[in-house]
Amino acid sequence: MYTIGIDFGTLSGRALLVDTRDGSEIATAVFDYPHGVMDERLPSGKRLGPEWALQHPQDYLDVFEHTIPAVLRQSGVDPQQVVGLAVDFTASSPMPAKADGTPLCFLDGFKDEPHAYVKLWKHHAAQPQADKINAVARQRGESWLKRYGGKYSSEWFFSKLLQILEEAPAIYREIDVFIESADWVNWQLTGVLKRNTCTAGYKMLVQDGAYPSAAYFAALHPDFGDVIAAKVKGEFAPLGGKAGTLSEAMAAQMGLPAGIAVAVANVDAHVTAPAVKATQPGVMVMIMGTSTCHIMSSESMEEVDGMCGVVDGGIVDGLYGYEAGQSGVGDIFAWFVDHAVPPEYHEAAKKAGLNLHAYLEREAAQQKPGEHGLVALDWWNGNRSTLVDVDLSGLLLGATLATRAPDIYRALIESTAYGTREIIEAFEARGVEVKELVAAGGLPEKNGLLRQIYADVTGRTLKLGGSSQSPALGAAMHAAVAAGVYPDIHAAADKMGKLKDEVVTPIPENQATYNRLYAEYKTLYDYFGRGANDAMKRLKKIRNEVRGE
Amino acid sequence: MYTIGIDFGTLSGRALLVDTRDGSEIATAVFDYPHGVMDERLPSGKRLGPEWALQHPQDYLDVFEHTIPAVLRQSGVDPQQVVGLAVDFTASSPMPAKADGTPLCFLDGFKDEPHAYVKLWKHHAAQPQADKINAVARQRGESWLKRYGGKYSSEWFFSKLLQILEEAPAIYREIDVFIESADWVNWQLTGVLKRNTCTAGYKMLVQDGAYPSAAYFAALHPDFGDVIAAKVKGEFAPLGGKAGTLSEAMAAQMGLPAGIAVAVANVDAHVTAPAVKATQPGVMVMIMGTSTCHIMSSESMEEVDGMCGVVDGGIVDGLYGYEAGQSGVGDIFAWFVDHAVPPEYHEAAKKAGLNLHAYLEREAAQQKPGEHGLVALDWWNGNRSTLVDVDLSGLLLGATLATRAPDIYRALIESTAYGTREIIEAFEARGVEVKELVAAGGLPEKNGLLRQIYADVTGRTLKLGGSSQSPALGAAMHAAVAAGVYPDIHAAADKMGKLKDEVVTPIPENQATYNRLYAEYKTLYDYFGRGANDAMKRLKKIRNEVRGE
Repeated sequence: MYTIGIDFGTLSGRALLVDTRDGSEIATAVFDYPHGVMDERLPSGKRLGPEWALQHPQDYLDVFEHTIPAVLRQSGVDPQQVVGLAVDFTASSPMPAKADGTPLCFLDGFKDEPHAYVKLWKHHAAQPQADKINAVARQRGESWLKRYGGKYSSEWFFSKLLQILEEAPAIYREIDVFIESADWVNWQLTGVLKRNTCTAGYKMLVQDGAYPSAAYFAALHPDFGDVIAAKVKGEFAPLGGKAGTLSEAMAAQMGLPAGIAVAVANVDAHVTAPAVKATQPGVMVMIMGTSTCHIMSSESMEEVDGMCGVVDGGIVDGLYGYEAGQSGVGDIFAWFVDHAVPPEYHEAAKKAGLNLHAYLEREAAQQKPGEHGLVALDWWNGNRSTLVDVDLSGLLLGATLATRAPDIYRALIESTAYGTREIIEAFEARGVEVKELVAAGGLPEKNGLLRQIYADVTGRTLKLGGSSQSPALGAAMHAAVAAGVYPDIHAAADKMGKLKDEVVTPIPENQATYNRLYAEYKTLYDYFGRGANDAMKRLKKIRNEVRGE
Repeated sequence: MYTIGIDFGTLSGRALLVDTRDGSEIATAVFDYPHGVMDERLPSGKRLGPEWALQHPQDYLDVFEHTIPAVLRQSGVDPQQVVGLAVDFTASSPMPAKADGTPLCFLDGFKDEPHAYVKLWKHHAAQPQADKINAVARQRGESWLKRYGGKYSSEWFFSKLLQILEEAPAIYREIDVFIESADWVNWQLTGVLKRNTCTAGYKMLVQDGAYPSAAYFAALHPDFGDVIAAKVKGEFAPLGGKAGTLSEAMAAQMGLPAGIAVAVANVDAHVTAPAVKATQPGVMVMIMGTSTCHIMSSESMEEVDGMCGVVDGGIVDGLYGYEAGQSGVGDIFAWFVDHAVPPEYHEAAKKAGLNLHAYLEREAAQQKPGEHGLVALDWWNGNRSTLVDVDLSGLLLGATLATRAPDIYRALIESTAYGTREIIEAFEARGVEVKELVAAGGLPEKNGLLRQIYADVTGRTLKLGGSSQSPALGAAMHAAVAAGVYPDIHAAADKMGKLKDEVVTPIPENQATYNRLYAEYKTLYDYFGRGANDAMKRLKKIRNEVRGE
């Protein structure tokens, strides 16, 4: 029997057809969103403001139409053998819809209205609303705030919905359902509106089964008090469960049997956990790309400093799911490679037949830890965990006239590893044990030096995800559970999850040096990050004043 | 009437023939030292140790033989119209000689002996001896130590002489006179051995007319107690005075009249003061190149934090001469341009027909102060003044994913300007007023952005040296005084010294922003430089341990 996982990313959707016996990846197909990320204009040509980022829901439907037939064709699998499907999605990427599920932007009269489209996760124009959400929560002593590291993000559900109310009250009035795209595509597949507990918990403030109070919402805006009753309908559905069955219409369009199981939707990072067999408490998964997302399940609910959220059943039903993150990782390395490496290394890389990342990695790998004399703070894109402060910025210390590009490249990789160690220590300081560390995503797959540095810096054996399309695999596993192939996600993870045979073991000598270097990082982290010297914030303030922003 | 100044640099010597009426620069000639800087091998092929840097005294004699006839020929000036000459030199660059002035390295049996050659200023292999000189001075409470910012350098006279005693006692025994090359070339010109008060004061520990006590020297090494009587002969001669007259033999070789005045020798940085009319108290001259040397005369003797030295008559006879410095300036910009600028800027510079410095300057000049959001500590090559600490290293703070090469280039220029402001404030904190600021040397000549930044950061009108060969011009002025053309160096400076008509005035708006940014620099300066966080030192220590150094 087979299932299909469909991973909706920022620029494209990917379907993966998987053998439920062992997780074998039989066929995959990718469809690029025709509208991509709309951050300058609507399809009509209408200009968007700064920090806007929208998507078009039609692109999501097109993903199904193109990729499912493609994987069936490629694999030669009999569609009757496909017993379920499941999606995972970027989050929080909500959209406004009518009561029948029609996105507002599909309707005549709304096509030219930015607020009628999907607000993609990286839409940052709702910062004033996020600020208000936080200020009012602090003022009222809302107990849930601590479960989000003390700060609700501009990227999340209610910031975006409040932005619509404040900036376009006429549009707000037209909304029957404001819904995460993850849940919306499931609604399209099944005809049933359900909200997955993952986004409900991490993005929609659902804690202990309930939203914040109407009084709280009313304190944000007089017309926001009834937001849950008026705009946020749908029952909660736990991860691993069945959202419904595939409708006749959609089944026909995709070439699948009608009535097969559609699993409760999930978030791309969180769905990776079962794909790397990390469904048990204390196994931390780092999904490493431009940024890193740390997710881990635990039997206990604690308030860990600077985490993005802790949600009952947030990763696996029955356990508390923690999320933390580093807002710049691969992004910082890319910045360095694009903007701070002199021509001689570009030429040498070309000569060696390597891309510049690989060449710098090779050069930097010839050094011992500590040899470059540098330490950096990995805050080029701010700090998500443990400080939750976007106004922090990067620091490089220890440069001399002898410092060369591979030195800095290595120091930047190390700084992100120190940042992960800081997160692990924050968890353990609150009694949430981190027993194992698994690296997934593109970065650790490509960069062996990075893998070793993370093992050495954290002092832990690093396991490595075994699939290069973990989110889609994780979704296919949820589909298998929803279809009843496995009794629960743990059993599915056991059979279908994948880790590489290779593990990366810390080298004791390196570990000893990195303990000393991490102490330096930690001192700088606290000094610049916790108020002793707010130079970074003052510099941004001066910059903004000078620019007239 | 004409005089000739001869400037002995690190790689070559330059003669400049000058009209004494107005300082007109009539002709110049440069001769590259055939032996250059010997930092790997002796001429015999014998290898030198790390940190060694030697020169060959024959090269200095060759400079006279080649450049003086050349400037006479070029200018067409009647040699009888040349009334004097004067040299300036790098310092401290001492050599061992016999009683008749013959350098030890000229003698058979010594040619293969590294300790028989000139130890160039940048010979750093005498660090253990410098450490001992400082430790013993501190232990004994030697009062002179404070006049050198609390630290005697490995580059200076007694460190190098003690190195010979400790490493090659047999060579040490053969020395009759250990002498600064500046004074040695004068000895060759005139047949008379005199020691100029500038190097005597700054490099040879002469304070209030006397060397440190024999007891102090004996405490360094039992055989060093009689060092002054045995190895350091020759009376002191004040700057602006006459060292002697040109000998028949040298006159014949150079094509000059015998018997003309030879002025007391001088140091290249210090001799620049009269060349830019800076002989009056309170006029600080910055000689800006790879590093910056700050020199200033004053009527009072104070112990300024981190200065390189204060010497009675050290710049101008009758005034106290102060020296301070920044150990990395142009060197840091060169490091950045060579090692941290991506290909696109190299290509754009080529397209614009500019060198990369000029291109980055142009790009960076389009920004307002504070716009890049960065602040740096200019310690890529350690910190000379005010911290006297070679183990400090560079820091860059405020980087984001939007940071680009011109941003960092500008931040580095600014950091060196903050370093100069720090020095000025250290002087003024001790009551030594800095009334005027003059920039000399190659850097301010080439870089208009740098000029404006220094004016804005220091909040002072910047005057600019008017000659691109200031040291040789300053030497020629001393020759004019020695020849009796002018009664003193002030009068010579008045007529022959040169400033550009252009001055650079601080822009009040920029100044206001830079006051805020300097406050950030200052906080970081004190935090990393004065013991609150010795991360830079610990990182160097770890680096050295890892490298097995």
